[in-house]
Amino acid sequence: MVFGNLGETSATGVAFTRDPSTGEKLFYGEWLPNAQGEDVVAGIRTPQPIRAAGHDQDSSLEKQMPEAYRELDRIATTLERHFRDMQDLEFTIQGGKLYMLQCRTAKRAARAAVRVAVDMVKEGLITKDEAVLRVDAGGIDQLLHPTLDPNAKKRLLARGLPASPGAASGHVVFSADEAERRAGQGKPVILVRMETSPEDIHGMKAARGVLTARGGMTSHAAVVARGMGKPCVAGVSAAAVNYEAQTMTITVYDEAGRATENVTIKKGDVITLDGGSGHLYEGAVPTVNAALSGEFGELMSWADASRTMKVRANADTPLDARTARAFGAEGIGLCRTEHMFFEEERIEAMREMILADDSRGRAAALAKLLPFQREDFVGIFREMRGLPVTIRLLDPPLHEFLPTEPKQIEHLSRTMGVPVQKLVQRTRDLHEYNPMLGHRGCRLAITYPEIYAMQVRAILEAALQLAGEGAQVHPEIMIPLAMTRAELERTRAIVDRVAGEVLDAAGKQVPFSFGTMIELPRAALLAGELAQAAEFFSFGTNDLTQATMGLSRDDAGKFLPAYVEGGLLPRDPFVSLDLEGVGALVALAVERGRRARPDLKLGICGEHGGDPASIQFFHKLGLAYVSCSPFRVPVARLAAAQAGLRARGESGGHGTA
Amino acid sequence: MVFGNLGETSATGVAFTRDPSTGEKLFYGEWLPNAQGEDVVAGIRTPQPIRAAGHDQDSSLEKQMPEAYRELDRIATTLERHFRDMQDLEFTIQGGKLYMLQCRTAKRAARAAVRVAVDMVKEGLITKDEAVLRVDAGGIDQLLHPTLDPNAKKRLLARGLPASPGAASGHVVFSADEAERRAGQGKPVILVRMETSPEDIHGMKAARGVLTARGGMTSHAAVVARGMGKPCVAGVSAAAVNYEAQTMTITVYDEAGRATENVTIKKGDVITLDGGSGHLYEGAVPTVNAALSGEFGELMSWADASRTMKVRANADTPLDARTARAFGAEGIGLCRTEHMFFEEERIEAMREMILADDSRGRAAALAKLLPFQREDFVGIFREMRGLPVTIRLLDPPLHEFLPTEPKQIEHLSRTMGVPVQKLVQRTRDLHEYNPMLGHRGCRLAITYPEIYAMQVRAILEAALQLAGEGAQVHPEIMIPLAMTRAELERTRAIVDRVAGEVLDAAGKQVPFSFGTMIELPRAALLAGELAQAAEFFSFGTNDLTQATMGLSRDDAGKFLPAYVEGGLLPRDPFVSLDLEGVGALVALAVERGRRARPDLKLGICGEHGGDPASIQFFHKLGLAYVSCSPFRVPVARLAAAQAGLRARGESGGHGTA
Repeated sequence: MVFGNLGETSATGVAFTRDPSTGEKLFYGEWLPNAQGEDVVAGIRTPQPIRAAGHDQDSSLEKQMPEAYRELDRIATTLERHFRDMQDLEFTIQGGKLYMLQCRTAKRAARAAVRVAVDMVKEGLITKDEAVLRVDAGGIDQLLHPTLDPNAKKRLLARGLPASPGAASGHVVFSADEAERRAGQGKPVILVRMETSPEDIHGMKAARGVLTARGGMTSHAAVVARGMGKPCVAGVSAAAVNYEAQTMTITVYDEAGRATENVTIKKGDVITLDGGSGHLYEGAVPTVNAALSGEFGELMSWADASRTMKVRANADTPLDARTARAFGAEGIGLCRTEHMFFEEERIEAMREMILADDSRGRAAALAKLLPFQREDFVGIFREMRGLPVTIRLLDPPLHEFLPTEPKQIEHLSRTMGVPVQKLVQRTRDLHEYNPMLGHRGCRLAITYPEIYAMQVRAILEAALQLAGEGAQVHPEIMIPLAMTRAELERTRAIVDRVAGEVLDAAGKQVPFSFGTMIELPRAALLAGELAQAAEFFSFGTNDLTQATMGLSRDDAGKFLPAYVEGGLLPRDPFVSLDLEGVGALVALAVERGRRARPDLKLGICGEHGGDPASIQFFHKLGLAYVSCSPFRVPVARLAAAQAGLRARGESGGHGTA
Repeated sequence: MVFGNLGETSATGVAFTRDPSTGEKLFYGEWLPNAQGEDVVAGIRTPQPIRAAGHDQDSSLEKQMPEAYRELDRIATTLERHFRDMQDLEFTIQGGKLYMLQCRTAKRAARAAVRVAVDMVKEGLITKDEAVLRVDAGGIDQLLHPTLDPNAKKRLLARGLPASPGAASGHVVFSADEAERRAGQGKPVILVRMETSPEDIHGMKAARGVLTARGGMTSHAAVVARGMGKPCVAGVSAAAVNYEAQTMTITVYDEAGRATENVTIKKGDVITLDGGSGHLYEGAVPTVNAALSGEFGELMSWADASRTMKVRANADTPLDARTARAFGAEGIGLCRTEHMFFEEERIEAMREMILADDSRGRAAALAKLLPFQREDFVGIFREMRGLPVTIRLLDPPLHEFLPTEPKQIEHLSRTMGVPVQKLVQRTRDLHEYNPMLGHRGCRLAITYPEIYAMQVRAILEAALQLAGEGAQVHPEIMIPLAMTRAELERTRAIVDRVAGEVLDAAGKQVPFSFGTMIELPRAALLAGELAQAAEFFSFGTNDLTQATMGLSRDDAGKFLPAYVEGGLLPRDPFVSLDLEGVGALVALAVERGRRARPDLKLGICGEHGGDPASIQFFHKLGLAYVSCSPFRVPVARLAAAQAGLRARGESGGHGTA
């Protein structure tokens, strides 16, 4: 909107009707005497504040041109009322006379967006639904983690994968023990490893953040760090980690992708990780903890009121479950049982199971794991106080539990009394060329049914214990990586047999349901078949994307950026669902599944469960819930509410979808 | 058919109207005086021949009971005429009187089946079409390779994957050099390796057969051995190969899967491989070279006459192409260009290309590869004399070309003048967790377009050279692993640019077409999109099966047998197409592709191109051709003819499909 176009001016400026960083309702802006509009933006001269506040009141427009200031303030208020949104205004003053050059909806930080939306409802400018629709759901993620101070100077050393969000600075250490020792002395540390393994967990717990040279978004480091809510940058391929020298040498690339120099980071040097962008910076970059103001909670309550699709969290431990509830999760959509086996005392029994020569040896080792697993479920069920919990039975290939480094193998050999040679041979036997497509998921149950039997026993015994405490528990037992109906029938038989044993012995009933992940194209194509043996489907869109597109998330870093930058793909399909391909397959499976079983319960538990664009798509398909990592739950709640409001807007009514 | 049921008998026997091993038209069978029918079958007493021939004429039925014999012969001939097929008869003789107990269509060996069918046409008993339908297409595979003598005694040591068919015996050697040395001395050798790499090719050429402890159906050993038409058993996981001790220790399992003992095979010990079953035997088991009689050729000519779907071969070298033509291939459906780079002189340039720091370095190395690649194409085009040749541009991830063993790396470091450290680092950079889903196929062309540019240049320069010799060549340039239309447009631009350069410089035209493999579920789902940028589709059903089912062929050996034996899958989906899942996806892609481009040329080049059940399915979809390994071409020709005849039979007419 142009009020006038002037030649010579005596002052010019830019104003916001509210503070674009915080959303506070105060007139905000900058001006320059004797200047063109570009001078304010270009940053050649230091502009002066519009409002008289703080230490520089004298230079303010309010003090220097009080009449023009008052008129500007009045016009700004009128414009904001007219457009019913925060405005960004360009003005000029000539001979004391104010001219408005332009006005438009103002860009604002996530925190400001929340506050402005909530305030405007209270001011009667907009409705609660409008407030919910006003806030960019993806943007509020930054309100949930510490972030780098945007004004801080920083030097980028390398890029990796944004494996777990949040920012952290600390002294570099190269071993978990060192991390624990230094952190115990009160020093902030960043644990740097080639890749992490279960032996590193105590170091990860002690560290502020984790960096790995190898591995991807589903690597051990990434998964564990996300579970801990700790920043992690994975797969920094430009970094060469040398444990002996205790150094990390980074090849620094310029914008054009040319290597410019090598930077060597030694033990004790300080670095900063941004797990949200996957960037690694030199030294300590200041971070900001955006306070979650009361407005944020208020907005979320409005979102929840207009939301029809449920939001659950992916949570593997009682602590995860507590975090998930705190963020408003309405259940657990994915409890990955394998992470429970990585803890130090448990992994030994797990390894004993893997190294057993026969079914009897496996059963003996599994008996040791049973109490741990049961206690985990008891803890999770307690935290979730009656909300639904979907438990996925063991999924990863067994070799993930065996140590790979010679030192670890020797240690295991001593503690277990198994010759190194046998350990090496068994590890070699279990090696897979493409573990993603290998002996995992319910395929483990076809060859080693005793594993799932132990897990089902742990689930039902835990549920019985809770029932004894007067709590309602309805576990949803979920089979991973199914591709045939026969697999579901076979695993269902294990579940029914164990349930019979456990519940008959207790003389009590526990309601539970049985379902499957849909994470292979074949499962989606044959959803009608699978639905005859499953009471619910949960779409594992991470794996479904990998298989449908033939893309390994851990390896795609070498070429996927070129695809997105070159416009070959509209966006990273692991962040936002590939609607044309993977999405079409999900839609087909929903339709075929429902046709076979009209009351089929449908949800999704891939990372896409926390992506607003994907959530909108899932809402259109009518899924019952999305499930995402605990820290993304508020994003998903807001996005799900928006999807519902938009759908109602499109259909013209206000009925529920 | 029961002629009577007698109490006490004085003689009993079983007779065939023709020889069930060879198909020769002579009355064949065995009898026992004073016996029940079971005695003949049970093998407790040694039965006597029916016909007087060879060294044991006196004991024959013909000599001992000439009248009964003549009556039996007469009845047999009548029955065969009546049923119009070779019969298996049970009879008994009491008091000189002949009673027929049963008669049924006789089981027969593949060789006999061919001969009987052809003879019966000549005898006017059946039509040529009936003859074509009579022979089990899958069974004739055994006529094309040496096989183990079914009557030989043998001791099974271990099972692996049937990686390349045929049987071979020889002395075990553990290195390619040793294989070459001993074979040079005229000794038959079997090369045993953990897994093979390009450095082993001279040893594989020298050996009678190859065994690897690791790797699967698409491992280097398997692919190269199939190309050489040499028996290979891969992935013998029960075998521990020790290069230092020059031994292979095999854990022998009994039928129930219990380990019974360890057998250690030393260098020089003799073993026998059956690449058709994947079995490994102790010592030398005699093999038989089933002679391809004239009848076989005659049957194939009838099959070809009634066949509508073309049969091509997968062939990578001029030698492969010659074999393929000899077996009746009507073109090459898949020429994998990467195997050309594994030859010793070429792999160095390939490695130079991979290790180059930038596009210029890569171009320089590729310039060295260009003449080799061009010569390969010239050779293949010459062999195929105008038949269509589909050339797939580079597909595998680059790390497959780098050495993995320290000794090889040191050697490469010396010959290339590149520090070991750099080689190790580059190999580590290229490492992939799931190479099947990694940086391969046309993804290589998005990041390194110069590779495909060199290959297209080689193809067109070779075609020009052939045109100069007066030969017609129509190359079909095929893009692997496409998942988006944009990839095809991007690679098409490379093809068009290079074609412009090459053809303009020559001032001549070469007709070529441009198409893509459909080997990812996303490509099948988006076939309508892809067809707009591709003139032909070739279904890569191996990879499509892997992605759709989430099954790595190299790793599935650990659980797929349990699936097939346990009835969870009807058959090995890498042998016979999974019609419900993968097949449905192929059908969907055919339909969507044709809708977008009615003249879309459709074929298939996975291993399923040689499987009769799959071929029948492809015929129903109306594909233009199937392509399989050269040795499977006759199988495919027969199966394709049968599919056509069955379809015409079902539709009731005799028109062409």
